[in-house]
Amino acid sequence: MTEVGIIMGSKSDFIIMQAAKDFLDEMGISNEISIVSAHRTPQLMVEYAKGAADRGLKVIIAGAGGAAHLPGMTASLTTLPVIGVPVKSANSIDGWDSILSILQMPNGIPVATVALNGAKNAGILAARIVGAYRPEVAAKLALYADEMKQAVLDSGKSL
Amino acid sequence: MTEVGIIMGSKSDFIIMQAAKDFLDEMGISNEISIVSAHRTPQLMVEYAKGAADRGLKVIIAGAGGAAHLPGMTASLTTLPVIGVPVKSANSIDGWDSILSILQMPNGIPVATVALNGAKNAGILAARIVGAYRPEVAAKLALYADEMKQAVLDSGKSL
Amino acid sequence: MTEVGIIMGSKSDFIIMQAAKDFLDEMGISNEISIVSAHRTPQLMVEYAKGAADRGLKVIIAGAGGAAHLPGMTASLTTLPVIGVPVKSANSIDGWDSILSILQMPNGIPVATVALNGAKNAGILAARIVGAYRPEVAAKLALYADEMKQAVLDSGKSL
Amino acid sequence: MTEVGIIMGSKSDFIIMQAAKDFLDEMGISNEISIVSAHRTPQLMVEYAKGAADRGLKVIIAGAGGAAHLPGMTASLTTLPVIGVPVKSANSIDGWDSILSILQMPNGIPVATVALNGAKNAGILAARIVGAYRPEVAAKLALYADEMKQAVLDSGKSL
Amino acid sequence: MTEVGIIMGSKSDFIIMQAAKDFLDEMGISNEISIVSAHRTPQLMVEYAKGAADRGLKVIIAGAGGAAHLPGMTASLTTLPVIGVPVKSANSIDGWDSILSILQMPNGIPVATVALNGAKNAGILAARIVGAYRPEVAAKLALYADEMKQAVLDSGKSL
Amino acid sequence: MTEVGIIMGSKSDFIIMQAAKDFLDEMGISNEISIVSAHRTPQLMVEYAKGAADRGLKVIIAGAGGAAHLPGMTASLTTLPVIGVPVKSANSIDGWDSILSILQMPNGIPVATVALNGAKNAGILAARIVGAYRPEVAAKLALYADEMKQAVLDSGKSL
Amino acid sequence: MTEVGIIMGSKSDFIIMQAAKDFLDEMGISNEISIVSAHRTPQLMVEYAKGAADRGLKVIIAGAGGAAHLPGMTASLTTLPVIGVPVKSANSIDGWDSILSILQMPNGIPVATVALNGAKNAGILAARIVGAYRPEVAAKLALYADEMKQAVLDSGKSL
Amino acid sequence: MTEVGIIMGSKSDFIIMQAAKDFLDEMGISNEISIVSAHRTPQLMVEYAKGAADRGLKVIIAGAGGAAHLPGMTASLTTLPVIGVPVKSANSIDGWDSILSILQMPNGIPVATVALNGAKNAGILAARIVGAYRPEVAAKLALYADEMKQAVLDSGKSL
Repeated sequence: MTEVGIIMGSKSDFIIMQAAKDFLDEMGISNEISIVSAHRTPQLMVEYAKGAADRGLKVIIAGAGGAAHLPGMTASLTTLPVIGVPVKSANSIDGWDSILSILQMPNGIPVATVALNGAKNAGILAARIVGAYRPEVAAKLALYADEMKQAVLDSGKSL
Repeated sequence: MTEVGIIMGSKSDFIIMQAAKDFLDEMGISNEISIVSAHRTPQLMVEYAKGAADRGLKVIIAGAGGAAHLPGMTASLTTLPVIGVPVKSANSIDGWDSILSILQMPNGIPVATVALNGAKNAGILAARIVGAYRPEVAAKLALYADEMKQAVLDSGKSL
Repeated sequence: MTEVGIIMGSKSDFIIMQAAKDFLDEMGISNEISIVSAHRTPQLMVEYAKGAADRGLKVIIAGAGGAAHLPGMTASLTTLPVIGVPVKSANSIDGWDSILSILQMPNGIPVATVALNGAKNAGILAARIVGAYRPEVAAKLALYADEMKQAVLDSGKSL
Repeated sequence: MTEVGIIMGSKSDFIIMQAAKDFLDEMGISNEISIVSAHRTPQLMVEYAKGAADRGLKVIIAGAGGAAHLPGMTASLTTLPVIGVPVKSANSIDGWDSILSILQMPNGIPVATVALNGAKNAGILAARIVGAYRPEVAAKLALYADEMKQAVLDSGKSL
Repeated sequence: MTEVGIIMGSKSDFIIMQAAKDFLDEMGISNEISIVSAHRTPQLMVEYAKGAADRGLKVIIAGAGGAAHLPGMTASLTTLPVIGVPVKSANSIDGWDSILSILQMPNGIPVATVALNGAKNAGILAARIVGAYRPEVAAKLALYADEMKQAVLDSGKSL
Repeated sequence: MTEVGIIMGSKSDFIIMQAAKDFLDEMGISNEISIVSAHRTPQLMVEYAKGAADRGLKVIIAGAGGAAHLPGMTASLTTLPVIGVPVKSANSIDGWDSILSILQMPNGIPVATVALNGAKNAGILAARIVGAYRPEVAAKLALYADEMKQAVLDSGKSL
Repeated sequence: MTEVGIIMGSKSDFIIMQAAKDFLDEMGISNEISIVSAHRTPQLMVEYAKGAADRGLKVIIAGAGGAAHLPGMTASLTTLPVIGVPVKSANSIDGWDSILSILQMPNGIPVATVALNGAKNAGILAARIVGAYRPEVAAKLALYADEMKQAVLDSGKSL
Repeated sequence: MTEVGIIMGSKSDFIIMQAAKDFLDEMGISNEISIVSAHRTPQLMVEYAKGAADRGLKVIIAGAGGAAHLPGMTASLTTLPVIGVPVKSANSIDGWDSILSILQMPNGIPVATVALNGAKNAGILAARIVGAYRPEVAAKLALYADEMKQAVLDSGKSL
C-alpha cells in the first residue's frame, strides 16, 4: 500500500518536486506522483483528496506556486497531514505569493509548510512522520543525519 | 433573476463585505449574499460556483482573508467573472497574504482583484460590468461619479 | 463594433500585453490595441477613456508598470469596467510598485487587477465579462476550461 | 506514554501556544507542555530533543518568535516530525522574522511550519499525524471537520 | 503672486498636509491650498496643473494615499517641480502603496518624493527651492537650521 | 556659475548617474560632477555641501546605494534643495535599502527622492527647479514634453 | 575613563536607549549618554566621533530611526566598534527603514547592528566586547547567562 | 593565541566568508576558519562555542544563510562578541530570511549583524574590536581609512 502521495499543479513543477520522491525512494517509503491542479482539475483534486486515506496514504505532499491553492484545498478534503511546498514558479513574485498562500491557512485546516522550493525537506518531513510509527524508517533517518554530520566534518578538513 | 452573487468564507467578513451589497442595492442591481467557505464547505463552494451561471448570475463577488482560496477556486468552477476582495482578517499579515493569494492566479483562471478591504469597489466594479450591458445602470454610475466630483468641489470650498 | 480596448503606456509593454489580444482573438471577441500614456499623452488618455463607452467598448484592458497610473486614471474617466495589468517593467521594483499603484485604488474608482504580467488572464477576464452577456462566448470559455483540464490529465499520464 | 510534546521559548508564548494543547486534549491525544529556550537553555533543549523519541513522543510542537531558533534546532536533534509555530512576539517585525527563521530551513532538516500564531493548527496537524496511524483519532478529526462545516452552514442561515 | 500651490485628493488629508502650509507661512512664502482629486475631479486636476506656471506658481506640493496618482499626473501636466507627499491614509497598506505609486515615476516625469506623511519636509523642500533664488528665504532657512541645532544641544543638557 | 552639482559616493555609480548630467547638458544647464563619499570622505562631503550655495549652485543631485547617507547628510549641511537618487548597487537588497535610507528623512531635513536608478528624472527635476526661475529652461522642458508625447503617438501608429 | 559612549539623535529615543545604559551600569562598565544628531548637529557628530578613541572610549552605541544615518556616519569617523540600534520611531515604516539604513553599510565601514529597538542587546554586546579583554566583566556576563537560564527553568516549573 | 574564529555552516559559504579572513590577515590579526553547522553538527557547535573563550578567542564571526541559526546559537553558548554575516545563499529569499534570523535576536543574546554578504565588514568590525584594545591594530585601521579616502579622491580626479 502506497504511504505517501505527491501531487503538483503542473508538470513544470516536477523539476522541483522530484527531490521529494527521490528521498522517499532512498528511505524505502512507497510513494506515487500525480499531476492534480486545484484550478484546472478541481474535480480530480476533490476525488484524490477524499480517497487518499481509504487508499492507505499516510501523508500527502502538494507543491504549487503563485496563488497556490492545491495544498490548502487538499487539506480541506482529507484528515491526513498535508505537506505544502511553495514553488518559486515563473509567475511568482520572488516566491512570496507561493509561501503566503500555502502557509497562512485559517484555523481548522493546517498545511505543514516547508521552505521555498523545499521539496527535499518535504520528503524528509514525510519520512519523519512515517518514521514516528515505523522504527526502521526512523533508523534510516538517524543514519542520514549521521551522514550529513560526517559530510560537514569532512568538508571542514579539506578547507 | 439575481444578477450578482456575493460570497464570503466567514460571517465575520460581513462587516467588510456589506459595502458591496449596499452599493448594488443603491444602483438597483439584484443581488444575494451567502456564507461559502472554500476550506470548511468545499462541496457547497463547488455547487454554488457550478450553478451560478445557470441561475442567471452575471458576476460573483468573493471576499476572503489570509490564505484566501475562495475567489480563485470559485473562478475555476465557473466561466462568470469573479471579483476577489482581499480581506484584512484577524489572522492576516497586514493583508499581504490575502492580496497575493487572490491576485496571483495562474494563467487560465483570472480573478478581478480589488484593493484590500475594497468591498465597495467590488460592488462598483460589478455594477460597471452590468452597466456595460444595461444602459440605465451606466447612467446611474455616471450620476454617482458626478456626485463624487461635486463632493470634492464642495469640500474644497469649505476649507 | 469593437468590444474590448487594450491600451498600454509604452510600446515596450506590447510583448507582455499581446497575450490579452491573442486570447480575445481566439474567443472571437473584437478588440483593438493602442499606445496611450497617462504621463506622456494625458490628453489622449482623457479622450480615449471618455469616448470609450460611446464607441461601443464594453471593457478596457490597461497595462502599465512602475508608478502605473494608466489603469486607475482611465477608470476615473469612464463607467466601463477597467482591467489593470501590472507590468514588471525594467524600472519596476520586482513588480511591487506596478501592483500596488494599480490595485490600491480609492473607494469609488475600482480597477479589476490581475496578476503581475497577467495579460492573458486580463484577456480571459474580459472574455468572461462579455460571456456573461453573450452565451456563445461563455460556451467557448467552457470549452477552453475543458481543454485546460484535458491538458493536465494528459500531462499526468506522460509522467 | 505521551504522544505530543509542546515546547516554547518563553512563558509569555503560552497565551498563544495553549490552543495547541486544548485541541490535542479535545482529540484525546496525550500531551505535555514545557518551557525550553534555544538561547537561554540550550543544554535543556539538546536533552529534550535527543530524548524525545525514546520517551515515546511522536510529534514535537515548538513555538517561538523573532529570530526563532527553537523549532529548527529541535528538528536538528531528533528524527521526529517537528511542527513550528511562528509567534508574533512583542519584539517581532509584524511576524516576518518569526516566519522566515522557522520556515526557511536548509535541506536535510525540515520544520512543518504553520501560520503566524497558528498554534491551534499546530495541534490539528499533530492530530492528523497521529490520526494517520490511529483510526479513532482520524474519526474524531472527521467529526471536527463536519462540525466546522455545520457551523458555516448555520451562520449562513442566520445572515 | 502665490509661489507654492498645495493640493490633496481629499479633505481628510488636510490633517497631514497642513504642516506644509504652516512651514511656508513661517518662512513668509505665499501659498494656497486646494482639494483636487486625480480620480474624482480629473478635469479640475488638468486645469489646475496646466494653469499653474502661468499663475506664477514656482512649486506644487501634492499629497495623496493608496494608489496615489495626483502627484505624478500633476507632474505630467506642468513643467514646474512637483513635490509628492505619500500619505498613510486609512486604506493604505502601511504606506507602501502610497510611497511606490508616487516615487517610481517613469523616465521623463519626475516627482520629488518626501517621507511618508512628510508634509512638513515638503514645505521645507519647497522653501529650499524658493530660497535658491530668493536670498532672504535662504537666510531664514539657515536660521531654522540653527534653531534645530540649538534645540538638540539644549535637549542634551537637560538629559 | 555652475547651477547644478552632481555627486555620488563611488565612481561605479557613474554609469547610473550620467543620465542626470546628460539631460542637464541637453537643457543647457551648467553642471559639474564629483565623487564625494559620505563614509569614505566625510570631510570632503562637509566642505562640498557647506560651500555649495556660496559657489552659486542652485540644486545638488546626490546618488548612493545600500545604506545611502550621502543625500541626507548633504541636505543637513546646506539650505539648497537636494535631489536623492537611490542606486541599486551591487550590495543593495533589490534597492529597498537605497530607497528607504534616502526617502525617510526626519522632519527638518528633506531630500527630494526620485525612483530607483532614476538619475535621468533627477536631472529633469533639477531642470524643472531651474526652469521655475529661468523661462528659457521652462520653454525647453515644454518642448521636451512635446517630444515625448509625439514619440508615444508615433509608436502607436507603427503598432 | 569612560568605556562606552551612548548617543542618539533625539531625546525622544531615550525611552528606548536607556536599556543599554542600565545594562552597562549593572555590569559595572563606565558609560555616558549624549544627544548627537547626524542631521541637526552634524558638526557635533564629527567632533564626538573623531575624539572618541582619544577620550578612551572602547565602544560607541548609536541609536536612530527612519533614515538613520547616525550609526553609519559615526563609524566613518572613528576606528572604534560602533553598535547601531534601529529605533522604531514615530516616522518609521514598521522599522524597515531604520534597520536597512543602519545594517546595509558599504564595505569598509561596518556597523554592528542589533534587533529593532534592541538597546538592551546593544548594552550586552558592548559588555561582551569589554568582557573579551576584562575577565571580571566576562564573569559577570556568565552569571547573567546563568540567571537567564534559571529564570526559564523556574518559569517552566510554575506552568 | 588565535584572536578571531570564523565559522560557517557550509563550505559553499566560504566564497563569501573568505573576505573576513583576508582582512584580518591584512591587519595582522591571528584567525582560524572552520565549518560548523548549527543544524548538521549541533554538538560540534556547542563544543566550539563553549571552548572559544578558554582558547583565547576574542571575537567569533559566524556566517549563515536562510533560516540562519549558527550566529545566534553560538552567541547563546559564549560570552564573547559574535558577529553574524547574513549570507544570500541559494535557498534564501533575496536574503531577507538570512538577515532577519540573525538580526532579530531576543533580549539577552545579541548578535552583531553586518550587511548581507558583508563578510569583509565582519572582518573589519572584528579588527575594530581588537583595535580598541591593541593600539597597533587601531593604527592600521586608521591607515586603511586613509587609503579608502585617497582612493575616492583619486577616482574623482580621473572622472
